[in-house]
Order: sequence, then C-alpha cells, then structure tokens
Amino acid sequence: MRILIINGPNINFIGIREKEIYGQEGFAKLLKMLEQKAKEEGIEIETFQSNGEGEIIDRIQKAYFEEMDGIIINPGAYTHYSYAICDALASVEMPKIEVHISNVHKREEFRHVSVTAPACTGQIVGLGLNGYLYAVEAIKSMISSQK
Amino acid sequence: MRILIINGPNINFIGIREKEIYGQEGFAKLLKMLEQKAKEEGIEIETFQSNGEGEIIDRIQKAYFEEMDGIIINPGAYTHYSYAICDALASVEMPKIEVHISNVHKREEFRHVSVTAPACTGQIVGLGLNGYLYAVEAIKSMISSQK
Amino acid sequence: MRILIINGPNINFIGIREKEIYGQEGFAKLLKMLEQKAKEEGIEIETFQSNGEGEIIDRIQKAYFEEMDGIIINPGAYTHYSYAICDALASVEMPKIEVHISNVHKREEFRHVSVTAPACTGQIVGLGLNGYLYAVEAIKSMISSQK
Amino acid sequence: MRILIINGPNINFIGIREKEIYGQEGFAKLLKMLEQKAKEEGIEIETFQSNGEGEIIDRIQKAYFEEMDGIIINPGAYTHYSYAICDALASVEMPKIEVHISNVHKREEFRHVSVTAPACTGQIVGLGLNGYLYAVEAIKSMISSQK
Amino acid sequence: MRILIINGPNINFIGIREKEIYGQEGFAKLLKMLEQKAKEEGIEIETFQSNGEGEIIDRIQKAYFEEMDGIIINPGAYTHYSYAICDALASVEMPKIEVHISNVHKREEFRHVSVTAPACTGQIVGLGLNGYLYAVEAIKSMISSQK
Amino acid sequence: MRILIINGPNINFIGIREKEIYGQEGFAKLLKMLEQKAKEEGIEIETFQSNGEGEIIDRIQKAYFEEMDGIIINPGAYTHYSYAICDALASVEMPKIEVHISNVHKREEFRHVSVTAPACTGQIVGLGLNGYLYAVEAIKSMISSQK
Amino acid sequence: MRILIINGPNINFIGIREKEIYGQEGFAKLLKMLEQKAKEEGIEIETFQSNGEGEIIDRIQKAYFEEMDGIIINPGAYTHYSYAICDALASVEMPKIEVHISNVHKREEFRHVSVTAPACTGQIVGLGLNGYLYAVEAIKSMISSQK
Amino acid sequence: MRILIINGPNINFIGIREKEIYGQEGFAKLLKMLEQKAKEEGIEIETFQSNGEGEIIDRIQKAYFEEMDGIIINPGAYTHYSYAICDALASVEMPKIEVHISNVHKREEFRHVSVTAPACTGQIVGLGLNGYLYAVEAIKSMISSQK
Amino acid sequence: MRILIINGPNINFIGIREKEIYGQEGFAKLLKMLEQKAKEEGIEIETFQSNGEGEIIDRIQKAYFEEMDGIIINPGAYTHYSYAICDALASVEMPKIEVHISNVHKREEFRHVSVTAPACTGQIVGLGLNGYLYAVEAIKSMISSQK
Amino acid sequence: MRILIINGPNINFIGIREKEIYGQEGFAKLLKMLEQKAKEEGIEIETFQSNGEGEIIDRIQKAYFEEMDGIIINPGAYTHYSYAICDALASVEMPKIEVHISNVHKREEFRHVSVTAPACTGQIVGLGLNGYLYAVEAIKSMISSQK
Amino acid sequence: MRILIINGPNINFIGIREKEIYGQEGFAKLLKMLEQKAKEEGIEIETFQSNGEGEIIDRIQKAYFEEMDGIIINPGAYTHYSYAICDALASVEMPKIEVHISNVHKREEFRHVSVTAPACTGQIVGLGLNGYLYAVEAIKSMISSQK
Amino acid sequence: MRILIINGPNINFIGIREKEIYGQEGFAKLLKMLEQKAKEEGIEIETFQSNGEGEIIDRIQKAYFEEMDGIIINPGAYTHYSYAICDALASVEMPKIEVHISNVHKREEFRHVSVTAPACTGQIVGLGLNGYLYAVEAIKSMISSQK
Repeated sequence: MRILIINGPNINFIGIREKEIYGQEGFAKLLKMLEQKAKEEGIEIETFQSNGEGEIIDRIQKAYFEEMDGIIINPGAYTHYSYAICDALASVEMPKIEVHISNVHKREEFRHVSVTAPACTGQIVGLGLNGYLYAVEAIKSMISSQK
Repeated sequence: MRILIINGPNINFIGIREKEIYGQEGFAKLLKMLEQKAKEEGIEIETFQSNGEGEIIDRIQKAYFEEMDGIIINPGAYTHYSYAICDALASVEMPKIEVHISNVHKREEFRHVSVTAPACTGQIVGLGLNGYLYAVEAIKSMISSQK
Repeated sequence: MRILIINGPNINFIGIREKEIYGQEGFAKLLKMLEQKAKEEGIEIETFQSNGEGEIIDRIQKAYFEEMDGIIINPGAYTHYSYAICDALASVEMPKIEVHISNVHKREEFRHVSVTAPACTGQIVGLGLNGYLYAVEAIKSMISSQK
Repeated sequence: MRILIINGPNINFIGIREKEIYGQEGFAKLLKMLEQKAKEEGIEIETFQSNGEGEIIDRIQKAYFEEMDGIIINPGAYTHYSYAICDALASVEMPKIEVHISNVHKREEFRHVSVTAPACTGQIVGLGLNGYLYAVEAIKSMISSQK
Repeated sequence: MRILIINGPNINFIGIREKEIYGQEGFAKLLKMLEQKAKEEGIEIETFQSNGEGEIIDRIQKAYFEEMDGIIINPGAYTHYSYAICDALASVEMPKIEVHISNVHKREEFRHVSVTAPACTGQIVGLGLNGYLYAVEAIKSMISSQK
Repeated sequence: MRILIINGPNINFIGIREKEIYGQEGFAKLLKMLEQKAKEEGIEIETFQSNGEGEIIDRIQKAYFEEMDGIIINPGAYTHYSYAICDALASVEMPKIEVHISNVHKREEFRHVSVTAPACTGQIVGLGLNGYLYAVEAIKSMISSQK
Repeated sequence: MRILIINGPNINFIGIREKEIYGQEGFAKLLKMLEQKAKEEGIEIETFQSNGEGEIIDRIQKAYFEEMDGIIINPGAYTHYSYAICDALASVEMPKIEVHISNVHKREEFRHVSVTAPACTGQIVGLGLNGYLYAVEAIKSMISSQK
Repeated sequence: MRILIINGPNINFIGIREKEIYGQEGFAKLLKMLEQKAKEEGIEIETFQSNGEGEIIDRIQKAYFEEMDGIIINPGAYTHYSYAICDALASVEMPKIEVHISNVHKREEFRHVSVTAPACTGQIVGLGLNGYLYAVEAIKSMISSQK
Repeated sequence: MRILIINGPNINFIGIREKEIYGQEGFAKLLKMLEQKAKEEGIEIETFQSNGEGEIIDRIQKAYFEEMDGIIINPGAYTHYSYAICDALASVEMPKIEVHISNVHKREEFRHVSVTAPACTGQIVGLGLNGYLYAVEAIKSMISSQK
Repeated sequence: MRILIINGPNINFIGIREKEIYGQEGFAKLLKMLEQKAKEEGIEIETFQSNGEGEIIDRIQKAYFEEMDGIIINPGAYTHYSYAICDALASVEMPKIEVHISNVHKREEFRHVSVTAPACTGQIVGLGLNGYLYAVEAIKSMISSQK
Repeated sequence: MRILIINGPNINFIGIREKEIYGQEGFAKLLKMLEQKAKEEGIEIETFQSNGEGEIIDRIQKAYFEEMDGIIINPGAYTHYSYAICDALASVEMPKIEVHISNVHKREEFRHVSVTAPACTGQIVGLGLNGYLYAVEAIKSMISSQK
Repeated sequence: MRILIINGPNINFIGIREKEIYGQEGFAKLLKMLEQKAKEEGIEIETFQSNGEGEIIDRIQKAYFEEMDGIIINPGAYTHYSYAICDALASVEMPKIEVHISNVHKREEFRHVSVTAPACTGQIVGLGLNGYLYAVEAIKSMISSQK
C-alpha cells in the first residue's frame, strides 16, 4: 500500500511562518511523524511539497501512472481558487483526503470555502499535524474495506 | 475522560434516509461502534440525538456543568444556519470537533459553508461513520497533550 | 388512507394575527374543515401544530414509522430557512404537499423562496384555507393512481 | 361562468419534450381533461396557447373586455422574467391562478422565483395536469363566495 | 419632420389599469394630446402600440427605412430587461427619448434601472402624459440645432 | 401593569461565556436587577429564558392570552435568522422592545442586521444589563401615554 | 410663482470639465437661459449652486419656509449616494424635478441608479441644458393644474 | 440533410448597425454565403430571421415536426435572458449550435453569459460570418458520425 | 458632567416632515425635553444640529478638546453611509450613544444597517423622543460606574 | 504559416479522465488529428501542453518572438480565473482562438464565464476534438483575408 | 511650481486618534515635514485640511483657477464613497496623487476600494507620513518630464 | 542593505505590450534604472522576473533564508487572485512594498482590489517606472528608522 502526501504552497514554512496560526511545530517534524507512521502501519508514504500549481497537478497525474493507493493533499491557499487542481484530483479515482492543519473556518472569509474538496473523498480540518495521521488511517481503512 | 457525542436533526435516520448519500450503515451501527471505541480507549462516551435546536443547546450547556472533557457534534442541517448552536459551542471551552458523515462539499451549495465550525477546534468531513472514531482519538490526544 | 397535516409556527394564530394577510378565518375553522373533508373522502386525517422546528421534524419521522400515506405541511416561516425540515421531508418517501394560506409572493422578499419545497411533491399557495382541501384531493389522487 | 386558461411557451410540447420532467402526459390530454371538467362543473373554459410574450399579454387584455370570470395561467419560462406579463395580470382584477405542472423548486435555481405570481391570487405547483383542475375549482369557489 | 411614438406593453391600458400609479388619464387622451401637439408644432407624429417585444423591434427598424427624424419610446416593463429593444434602438441613429408616465424610482426595485436608456439620447420620468409633449419638443429642438 | 421579559439562547450563560463580549456581570445579577426594578416601578415583571425557538414562540403567544402589557425580548442569535419569532412578535399587538447587552454592530457581520426588530416597537443595543431597565421604563411610558 | 433651481457639486464646472460628457455649453450659459425663461414664463426663478451636501439640504429646508412653488435639482454625484438630500426633498411637499444634463445611463454603472429620484415628482435626463427648461414648464403645468 | 438557421433580433441589421462591432459585412452577404455553402456541401439550408421571441420558439417547434437534422441559432440579445428559447431548444433533440458573429466576451458584462447555450451542443463566438459555415460543417460531421 | 447632543440632517424638520414616520412631536419639543432633563439630572447638556457632514465631524472633534463626558448622536441619513463620521466618533474616547427616533428596521432596507454604530458604545432605536432621555441616563450611569 | 496550439491543465488526461464529459477520444488522438490537419492545410502546427500557469504564459510570450501566425488555446480550468494568461494573450497581437472540447455552459456554474476569452479573437465550445480543426481553419482564413 | 496638499476628514486628528493604526506621529509633524520639503525642493507647497466634502471640492476647483501644478490628496474616509470628490478631481487636469498614511488594505473591507483613485494619476498607500514626500517628488518629476 | 525586486507575469513585456496602458518605456529600461538607483543609494538590488506563481513564492521564501532587507513586488495579474503569494509575503517579516506601474483603479473592475496588498507594508500605484524608485527609498527609510 502506497500513499502520496502532497503539501502545497507555504506549507514548508510552518514553524517559520505565523506561529499563532500554525503552532510551533515545523515542517520537518511533520515529515518525521509521517515517516514513523509509515513504519507503524507497514505502508509506504511518499511526500511531495511544491509552491507551484502546475507542479502539484503534474504530481497528481504521475500518481495515476504509479498506481498509488491514495492521496492526502493540503493545497494551502490553492484550496480556495485552484479549479485546475480540483480537475486533476477529479481525474484520478482513488481515496483522496484534503487536510488543513489550522481551522480554516476561524480565519479570513475566503478560507471558508474549498473548491478542491468536492473532488476529494473527505476532509480533516484544524486537528494540527495529527490530521495527516488520521488521514493515513482513513485511507488505509477505505482500501481495506474495498478488498 | 468523558466525551459527549451530539447528533443533530435527521442523523437518527441514516440507513433509512437517502442511502446514496449516507451509505447503507445505520444509526444503530454508529452507536455500537462508539460503545466499542469507548471500551477500547478506556474512556466514557455519552451519546445524544435530538432534532431540536434548543435541546442541542441545552445539552451543550449541561456538558459545561458536567465538566465533560470534549464534545463531538454532527449538527446536521443546523450546521449551515444555527448561529445559536455556534454561540453555545463558543461558550464552553474544551476540545470540540464537528463531524459530517458525507462529503458536504459534493452536495448542494448551501452545505459548503459551516457557521458552527468557527466555534469548534476542528472538523472531519466525508469519512463515513469512522469520522466519529477519529474525532474521539483526536480529542483524547488533545487532552493528553494538555496535561 | 391516512394523511398527516402539519402546521408550523404561528399558523395556530391565524384569525388572531394580521387579518389583512391571512383573512378573517381562524385556525379552529381550518380544523373543522379538515375533519369534514376526512368524512367526505372516507379517509383519516391527523392534524398536528407546533411552533418548534425539532418537534416538526420528530412528527415527520414518526409519520414514517406509522406508514402514513401522505403529508401536507405548512411550515410557516420555517419555509424560508429550515434546511433541517427539508432534510426530514426528503427522508420520507410519500406524497408531500406544501401549503401556504396567503400568497407569499406578494409579501416580503424573503418569503419568495422556499427551501422546503424541493423536498415536496408540489405546492399550493394563496388559495386560503381551501388550499389544504385541494392538497388532500391531490394526495388521494396520487395514491390512487399508484395502485 | 367563463374561465380562460393560458398556456405559455413550450407547454404545447409536453409529452414530446423532456419526459423525465413533465411526465408522459401530453398537451392533448390536458385539453381533453379541461373540456371534461368544464362539462362536470357546468362552466365555460376557453384555452389559449402561445409562445409569444406579447400575444399572451394581448389575450389577458382581451379577457378584460370579454368580462371573463377568472384566469388560469402557466407562463412557462416567462414566469421567471416577464415583468410585462406580470403588469398585464395586475391590470385585470379577477381571480388569477398560476399553475406549474412540474415542481419548479426541484429544478434549476432560476426557476425558484416567479415574477408573475405577485400579480396572481395563488399558485399551484408540481401537481401535474391535475393542478389545472384544482385551479378551476378554486376560481369557481372564489367567485361563488364573492356573491 | 416626422416623429414616431412607440408605446410598449400595457400602456394601452392606462386609465383602466392601476389608477393609483398611472392616474386617471387614459390612453385615448394621450393619443389626442399627441395629435393636437403635432398640429401645434407643425410636424407629423405617428403613434404605435404593441405588447410584443419583437413587434416593437420591427417598428424601430422600419423607422430607419422610413427615415423618421426621431423616436419617443415608452417600453413599459420591457424597459427593465429587453436588451433586444436596446440593441434595436442602438442600431438606428437619430434622437431617441425614453418616457415613463409614472416615477419608476418610487416603485418596485426592478423598475429603478433601465436597460434601454443607454441606447437613447435622454429620458423623461414621472411627468405624466405631459412627458411625451416635452419629448416632442426636445426632439424638435435637437433636430433644429443640428441643421 | 405586567411586562414579560424573554431571554433567548445562551443568554443564561452570560458571566460564564465570552466575558470580553458580555462583561463580568452574570445572568443571576440580571434577574435580581429586574426584580428590584419591578418593586421600584410598582409593576409585575415575569422573566422567561429558553434556548428553543419554538418555546420562545409559545411564550409570546401565551403572553397574548395572558393580556401582558408589553414584551422585552433578547432573542440572542435568533435575532439574525428567526423569521418565525418575528412572525410571532408581529402577531401580538403591544409595546415590544428588543434588547442586546453588547453592541452587536461591533461584532461579526451577520450580527449587524436584525430580522426580529421590524416586528418590535424599538431596540436598545450595547448598554449592558441596564438596557433591560430602560426598556422597562420605555414600555411603562408608552402604556401611560396611551391611556 | 417662484421656482428654486439647485445645482449640486461640480455643475458649476460644466464647460470647463469633461467636455465630451457635458458638451461645450457652460454654467454661465445655463444661468442666462434660466433668466430668460423666467421672463418668458412670467415667473420668478432663483438659482443656487453648492458643492456641499449640508448646504444643499439647508437650501431645500429654506425653500420650505419661503413657500417656494417647486424645486428643480441636479444633485450631481450626490444623486447616487445622498440619502440625506433624499430625506430633505421628501420632507418638503411641492413639485420637485431631478435634472441631469448628460445621459447618466450611458456612463459608469454607479450612475444608473438615483437615490434622490424617489423623493421627486419626476426626472429629466440627457436633454442637455434644455432639460432645465422642460422642468420649469412641467412644474408650472403641475401647479396650474392643481388650482 | 436539412439544417435550419435561425437569426434572432437585430441580426438582419448587421452591416447597417454598429459597424465597429459587427464589421462591414451585411446580412444579405450572410444569406448568400449560406446558399453557396449549401450547394458545396450538397445539403439543404433553410434560413429564418425574426425579432420576436415567440416566433423563434414557434420556428424551433416546427423544425421538430419537419424532422430537420440540425439547428444553427444566433439568438441575438435573447441569448442573455430568454429561458423560453432555451426551453424550446432543449425540447428538440438534434445537433444545435449557437453562433455569435462578434466576440461577446469583449462587450458589455451582460453579454458574457448565455442562458441558451446549455441547451445547445456547442457554441462558436467571434469568428465573424464564417462562424455559421463552421457550424454547418460541425453539424454535418455530427450527423455523419452518428450513422 | 457635560453631554453633547448632535442631531444630523433633517432632524430639525421632525414635526414638519413625514409625520407618519416621526410622529407629531417636533424638534422644538425635543430641545425643551432635553433642557428639562439637564435640570433634573443636574448636568449640562449642549445641543447641536447641522445638515452638514463636515460640520458634524468638526463638532465631534471640538468635543474632544472641550473634554465633554459623552456624546449622544442621531446622524440622520448619514447613519447609513458616513464612514467619515464613524471615523470621527472612533477617534474620541468617551461614552457615545446613537439614537434614532423611529424604528429604522421597519423602514427602507438601506436603513437597516448603521455604519456609525460600530464606533458607539450603544444604540437606542424607535423609542421616540424619549430615546434621547434614556441615552442621557445611560451615559450618566456609565460615567458614574467608571469612577 | 505557423500556428501554436496550447493545451492547459489536465487536457493531457482526456480519454483517461471523466469520459462522460470529454468523450472516449484521448489526447493522443487529438495530436494525430492536428498533425494530419497540418499536412492537409500545408501549414505548420506546433502543440504544447502544460499544467503550469507560468509555463503557459512563457509559451505565449515565446510565440511572440517566434512570430507565430496564430494561437489556439484551451486553457482548461485556468479559463475561469487566470487573468495572468489573459494579460499574456492580450499582449501578443495575432489571431487567437479559445477552444473547449465539452460544452462548458452545461457544466458547473463557475465554468460559464471565461476570463481569457476577452483577449481572444473568438471561441469554439462543445464541438469535441473537431473544435481545434475549425479553429485552425478560422485562423488560416483570418490570415489569408488580411493579406 | 506650486503643489496643493489636501487632507480630508479626521486627518487633523492623527497622533490623537487610533495610534495603533496611524502611528505616533501627529498632524503638526506632517505640516512641518512638508514645509521643510518645500524648501529642499525649491517649490511652493500649500496645505489645506477640511472635514467637509463640499469644502474639499471647493478647494479643488479653486486650485484650477490658481493654476496649481499638482494636487496631493488624502481624502480620508471620503475615499470610499465620495463620487463628488472624484468628479471634482476628474474635472481639473493636472498631476494628482492620492495618499493614505496607513495600509488601508489591512483594515476593514470597505477601505479596500477607492472611488477617488480613478480620477488621480497614482496612489501611495501605507508608507506613513513619508508617502506625502514621495508624492511631492513624483509630481515634480511628472511636471519636469512634461516640459 | 539588500533589496529584492520581484516582477510577476507579463511585466517583462512592458514596452512590447499594450503601450497605451504601460507607456513606451520597456522592461530593459526598468532594469537599468534600478541598477543606477542601487549605485546612487549604495545598496544591493537584486531583480527577479517570473510568470509562474510557484516560482514567485519560491523566490520570496529564498529571500527569507538570504536575510534580504526588503522586498518590492509587482505581482502583475496575480495581485488580484493569488492568495498563495499573499501567504508567502505574510510569512516573511521585513518591509514589503507592492508596486503597479499603471493606475489599476482606472482599468477593469477586477483590478481595483488587491489580495496581496494586505500582506505588504505599503503600495505605490500609477507612478510609472518611478514607482519602483520611491519604493526603494521607502524601504531604505524604514530600515534606517528601525535601527
């Protein structure tokens, strides 16, 4: 079982950037947590970060050819206007979960609507870095129940 | 550790109602899953269902006096207009997670915005009945890390 | 054949309240008209009035278990914002007709759109208390034609 | 007692056009039903169909000079933008009922608001061809009660 | 000098229709006033009334071939949505004045904006039947000053 | 002279809930202040608190049959969407004053418009618990001046 | 018979300002035309120009005490947002006509709606400086017909 | 193979009207081009022009009974508000292509959305008179590929 | 203790203007009531009325230098668009209460939102001239409780 | 004659992705069709696909320096929000045609408006892969007619 | 070279008012900085401050007759609604720069759009009191480059 | 002192593209002006241009690690929708100034609001290429005053 985790623009700056929103935990810690989770669950987790809309779409399309089992994506600010990422997600059929570290509903109004979520299976918001771990579990559970 | 789980209007009808949206799993199954989860995690879980906006607010306020450790709430359609439930949630300080069984972002436009989510810690959407279980884990984790 | 007639908030006050809108006829007269209609048509008609959103949803759900043949509902002001009542109506499959005594299209702008009507079979507006009688006939006719 | 029944654009195509919306019943059947209803009720019913906005207004104005007793109108798509038909209806004082065969509230958003309904006495929506028959009864009842 | 005066839908009903808005003066009176004005000013005035959007456009186009000197138009309710009449007016270069008998700014909100006025030279609103007479004078004055 | 004071959802939690908005003063203090005011003014004051929309409507209707002299209402969050409470207030003719403890105009945008205020005589906003006392005086003054 | 003519902000700059919109004719010419018109019609015309919203309101109120017979007002840009001038016009009962030299409907969108027109009797738009003369005639005609 | 080409309001005035938008080519030239195209392609092309909304709907309905193979329509300004023409197009199943001579996206904002396009197979915009020829080819190609 | 009372545009015309909205009581009566209230309460009350937005701002700024203890302001129609008055109020720290004589929530929609209220401590609406008296009491009470 | 054909995000996935919208024909087929068309027409066609907004702009700018004769572009989802691509297209003067394979007007509302079309000469929508071929013909025709 | 600097409502209160927004620097300091700048640059700078919309327009018009070389204006809150000041600026042809001391884009939403900026040459926002100095340099540079 | 200057999409085309908007001065000239300014001011200026949203974010993040002293950014069309660039700017704490060469307030409506400006210190609009020079001075001044 292989899961791709995509982090969009500025997610690599958490820990550096606006600590009152994203907490003290940094991006490096997230990568370690995911590595450890992969071991615990006995699955492969591949992580990818890019600030580029096109590169994120490229990576989603590549996941299709690699026959990944699921995608976890935190599209950062693209969540709120990238219909192109939404189309890319819609074109690959597999479990897909959108994750946001902070509770976007408590922030600026433009962050209250997600244009990418309709192309995902589900969404986890505001549970900090743990949100990624629950997403891993959820995808694992979906794939297991399909078999 | 005691967690209150509130299900709002029509959630008691899942399994009966619109199966193409909520899946075949029924409300009874949810209650059993939560009972079992409580045992596994060694915590107390209390469940409450009501179709009434006022009764849901009453229950949230009671949780304050009972010194509950956290609230998991699926406000059903109230999610999209009950500022009164939002105010009630905002008035009790503890971990609070909003859960939606189906992916509300794939449904009618009025379901794309939550007026109750800003008063919660986080939100889990579209992961089926499992969403409640992840919410239980998340609240447990939050409380543990506070100690 | 059993039909449930639900009257929502403030409908019990017609005749008392704003006569220039609802006419002089009172709620008691409506109940009598329905009783007489039941006799004429040889069917059972049960009436229910509540000012509470949750109680109206409870009653709709109960109708499901009672295997009612149809519902006639005047949701009063809830017509314009109760997505929760809409969900409840949508969850019970049977002929359902929304009735408004006055012509809501002649009144304030917020009354021009119904959020509950999409979950009903049809709608009768502005025909006074007679609207309920036509609704009874329509449900009877629908059930007959299904057999 | 003479009632004019006006059918607007494309209503003559029901039975031909989009059967999943309008059902299998055709326009010819509607005309027969109305003819029979006229006999049963002992009244005169005149039917008129036109795809033209101006012709519908002409016909409404002519009804004024003919001293018709009531108008039943299904303005088709003009329902949603013809302020000119609305003005015409408003200019003739008599019972007027707007009828829609299908439940317009279940269809595209632009069909949820009627600009012609404020000029009518009432509205019947989604009750199929029977809607016209209830409208006939309602107008008959209104005229009787005025005397 | 020849001026065409176009009256749109329902203008032929003033005096009959909604007297509190249009006053007691009728359409026949308007025609007489215009006839007399033509004599006084020593010009030709042709009047045309139609409830049909297409017929009004036909008449505007015909005016082009007849080499009329100006158009005075009261588009009735078409004022507020007929981009087609607007296009027709825009296609004929000559003085064009829009007239409204009542003060549309005091009426329903949809009447506060005119989509046809941008294609006219000017607009006279709320001055009763006299508005047509001032429009005649204005067109005469414009043509004179062009020579 | 008898005045009914209705407090809506979450008002019973002031003092507990969000102190930076509602101040330190609690609900118990409000009840004492009103009791004392009643004595001073030599009138009867009855207080009622409920989180339920339907129960608030029930209480308003009951006030009609009890022939109360006036109503003071703080509808809490229902202020901003309960057209049903608005209808209930509109149906009982007596002095009615809406009170908000905090200045709602300084808070979230959805709190800037009141749908219940049009059915009241007046409104007092942001004057703390004293707002209720001024409302009592105002109702007393209105009733006196009517005699 | 005395008529007050109020010109609002920047109207004193016509002829100087944006000639493609207002034409070559200047403000001085307007004043002369009005002087001559007063002589021809045998009435008194008083003109007033101010760039200040408050001063325009002061002048309207003064007209009330002077028992003027009518007001012609070109509120300039205030037309589109001065509810205060609208209120002032509404408070004085006499014939009032709003004049715009250019066709505001052909200009920026914010100029398509007038908030002051609902407080006037009528409106003349786009007929150049002559618009003022027609307004004088119209007010004279209204006053004559009232006697 | 027979194709009907419908031109809506004011299209007959191209060449006369607003040359900077529609170019110098006139309506007569369009008719000749289509005649020649018919010969080249060995098909029948029937052309129809009307300024009337109702007449355009009549013609679409007639095409159904004539068993036309396809419709090419330039609805002129009706493109932007005629839901009635949209309904008529939706009711006849055959290839249908909407054509606009100029690039409507470069013009006023109301011309950027088409309410008739959803009922067509496709749309050709801004390619001048040639747009009609490509539409003929496209319909021919669709019909050929169906066989 | 010195309180400044500012009345904005057209408030000086109450009693003259629109009696059905403002009642029969005139501006002179208000001034007398305030004079008497000052005596009763043993405080200084200074009143100021102006139709000018700038003059009202000047007066607010002057109050700052005079070290007034509070401001009561009825900004008239400026309430709904004068961000400049809002800024002026925000710049002076003292108790400030906005008063409206009539219930603005019952009037035109533009009067339902106040842009000046967020800069005030509180607001009193629809209690007639007495509203000013309650505002005086409220400011006195606020200042007393601060000491 | 050299024409550049740019395909934006996810167009390379047609045939893989959502077959009910884009049909069974794949991207490879499109490339072959264009190759063949180039031969038939005796012109050069260069194709370019990228998921990246910046790369598409780079390619458009490069076309300027290469002195391409025309651009055909299917901007995918960027059609609906990329003002940057719009600016790039606007900066290069040559025939430019926007192509959409499916009828975007039948899909989600956000797809009904194109922000890139105003910078193009024309647009072809919903004619499947053939749309590109007609666009090639149209550009060829435009260039020929310029010479 | 003479430059006029206009400061609108409440700008005279900076240093007094909301220090967290405008910083500690006061209006007196601004005047001194400008005086010094005038000396350094060898030009005349005239400053004007008013809270009145009309007075600001008067001053702009006077600058026209004085043949000023440029205007720097901080319209305060009028920036966001004074179309009258916009018109005044548009009527005088010379370099005009709008200055805001604070970054209005970080403040309330209504401050994000300027209705006066379209009538200016440019705009400087958020650079503190220095913004005025850059504006002086920019106008000097523009005038120099024109010669 | 090192300042980074970022130019977004299509800025490299000024001089080539739409001369009536951006003037004749080209991008090469801008680079030279900045080089010269660096010398004059004795600071380092690094320039970067990209059409890619992701690459601009990458460059902003790199500036953080390079410990740049300030950023001047002209985000081109991204100004109006790139919340991702806004987030990137917000994450790096240093003086940041947004520059637009032309007066965006005079252009299309979508250019009147900047979503990136709230993350900057200030903004300079419409002062041509000189805008960059003032921005350099402003950043230098801010840094100096911090020391």
